[in-house]
Amino acid sequence: GVDKKILVIPGDGIGQEVTTWGRKVLETIATNYKHNFTFEEGIMGHVAIDATGTPLPDETLDKARKSDAILFGAIGHAKYDNDPTLKVRPEQGLLKIRKELGLYANLRPIKLFDELLEASSIKPEILRGADILFFRELTGDVYFGEKKRTEDRNTASDLMIYHRYEVERIARKAFEAARTRRKKLCSVDKANVLEASRLWREVVQAMEKEYTDVTVEHMFIDNAAMQLVKDPKRFDVVVTGNLFGDILTDEASQIAGSMGMLASASVGDSVGFYEPIHGSAHDIAGKGIANPLASILSAALMLDISFGLKNESLRVIKAVETTLKQGFRTMDIANKHTENHLVMGTDAMGAKVLENLS
Amino acid sequence: GVDKKILVIPGDGIGQEVTTWGRKVLETIATNYKHNFTFEEGIMGHVAIDATGTPLPDETLDKARKSDAILFGAIGHAKYDNDPTLKVRPEQGLLKIRKELGLYANLRPIKLFDELLEASSIKPEILRGADILFFRELTGDVYFGEKKRTEDRNTASDLMIYHRYEVERIARKAFEAARTRRKKLCSVDKANVLEASRLWREVVQAMEKEYTDVTVEHMFIDNAAMQLVKDPKRFDVVVTGNLFGDILTDEASQIAGSMGMLASASVGDSVGFYEPIHGSAHDIAGKGIANPLASILSAALMLDISFGLKNESLRVIKAVETTLKQGFRTMDIANKHTENHLVMGTDAMGAKVLENLS
Ligand SMILES: CC(C)[C@H](C(=O)O)[C@@H](O)C(=O)O
Ligand SMILES: CC(C)[C@H](C(=O)O)[C@@H](O)C(=O)O
Repeated sequence: GVDKKILVIPGDGIGQEVTTWGRKVLETIATNYKHNFTFEEGIMGHVAIDATGTPLPDETLDKARKSDAILFGAIGHAKYDNDPTLKVRPEQGLLKIRKELGLYANLRPIKLFDELLEASSIKPEILRGADILFFRELTGDVYFGEKKRTEDRNTASDLMIYHRYEVERIARKAFEAARTRRKKLCSVDKANVLEASRLWREVVQAMEKEYTDVTVEHMFIDNAAMQLVKDPKRFDVVVTGNLFGDILTDEASQIAGSMGMLASASVGDSVGFYEPIHGSAHDIAGKGIANPLASILSAALMLDISFGLKNESLRVIKAVETTLKQGFRTMDIANKHTENHLVMGTDAMGAKVLENLS
Repeated sequence: GVDKKILVIPGDGIGQEVTTWGRKVLETIATNYKHNFTFEEGIMGHVAIDATGTPLPDETLDKARKSDAILFGAIGHAKYDNDPTLKVRPEQGLLKIRKELGLYANLRPIKLFDELLEASSIKPEILRGADILFFRELTGDVYFGEKKRTEDRNTASDLMIYHRYEVERIARKAFEAARTRRKKLCSVDKANVLEASRLWREVVQAMEKEYTDVTVEHMFIDNAAMQLVKDPKRFDVVVTGNLFGDILTDEASQIAGSMGMLASASVGDSVGFYEPIHGSAHDIAGKGIANPLASILSAALMLDISFGLKNESLRVIKAVETTLKQGFRTMDIANKHTENHLVMGTDAMGAKVLENLS
């Protein structure tokens, strides 16, 4: 067995409810496969602002640096969404930890479980067989460029900026991944309007020579947002910037049936960071109805990517699949038109997956 | 009858093929309703670069200023898409004319013709009844902020910037439109990360007091990209910035069955500018298979918005509807699963609409 230190950061809203289940799955895997996983907890986001005045306390960041992998929940709170003038904001915690840990590559695999073919708003014949791996750049772009507000408060700006090395390192990861898959890479930008995108396109084009076995397509973001709904099967690996990646992967959640199903891995310099794609969902927080599967699948990604435990990872995915096959559903993936579905809350659903793991 | 001067700018790629039909429809309406429409032609885009070295010749801009309305086709060419280092680019023409004519409000109505319910990749039960009016801000944002490239060519940036008055004037148009519709306004931004979005949200929030009869919702762009596919019926009027609007409206084309169906109106200081949402589509340009309906529906928008000819506008929409009812389809909206569809090219389809107009 392996020794690993895992930091758990539930964060805000439904993060608190679902992350428990990602953790429990890791605990069960440790027991079943005789690994030694030790857990710590950290705070971040609105809960951290409430407790300490800052969205990412030094203590959490220290713990993060010392861990082998981090399981994160979600961030954000209605209070801040409703008041854009607040200076200290939960999301700053997430952006800071991404930057501090050098987590420049955000992997978002989009794959539909057969059992959920009917749960999407998109037609089953369009979805069947879709399998996309997104590489979203995570520590650059307009997210981290300089932000300004004039003194009269009447003008606001954010700098969309990319450096060559930033594009190169994320593109390299995407090219390498494409090699192990269907050998197709789609790079998404807005090079017909944006200078940052023209740099992006130049860099990816220059790398094509190194990867002649990979077929590369360049697509404008507006077209990509359309093609993703029209014909998701045309995509294999997609690489794009921070902002466009944020938008496209949320949109792509409909390909996987629901946002509640999607896990992500952020990697870079060393430690790996695993989180559902969904947010804190304050509209349903505290109700015990959130889907725990994205957190559980984030744990599966951790086992695979950070720990190299491929079998254990597949075991978790299998348990999720079995649970869906048995007809168990949380609200977000229940299909009104299908019989034989047992709709349940977060804890009941999580417990079913644990059962299927044993 | 009314006297109007219309400038026709076919532009690049399929713009050349489809704009003919928008113009013919306007000519037919003029004859049938005894209006006096005079037409001029202008060049813009790749064709203008080829002919004059610049994507928007002064002559075209002069003609535009002197006209009552402009019917535009599309812009862009593979040559430039494939070479991000080229300095003079077709799209600069379109951006410049938008700026010079003060076309700050881009209206993009998304409505599905019943006959096309099956043409979309989205399930009919999700689409039926969807009716969205987008207001995309068109002369600000990262499109027009300062662009920079360092001398070593290794760093590139674009400034995402908004001024209070820019947000106010587009939001006002959107609020007013919501009043005449289902009284719901969704403002889309990324206020949890971007300062420009926080200004955007502040401004829209402040205006809510003036429009207490309109229910306002603020949504993050990533969530909006998802909700648009998941539940398009939840939207009535949507207002957003230039970049987010570009992305969301292309995505929304799937709600209307095809990109080839969507028209847009850009208005502001004086003259109105009408164009399909689709691009120059170099992959199908010159083949005579592009869908002319977006250009024809752009002409319908012109009749309504710039000329106040509501009946004439409805007459055009009706003719399109009849053509679809008769089973005529261009390739992009043909449904493989339905019988009784006659698939035809651009000219045959355009001719059918003209027939139905008489
Ligand atoms: C919460 C927010 C800052 C974040 C982002 O935009 O990156 C989220 O949407 C995500 O996708 O991880
Ligand atoms: C051609 C391009 C510059 C343009 C834009 O991004 O505005 C187009 O996509 C549009 O939506 O009108």
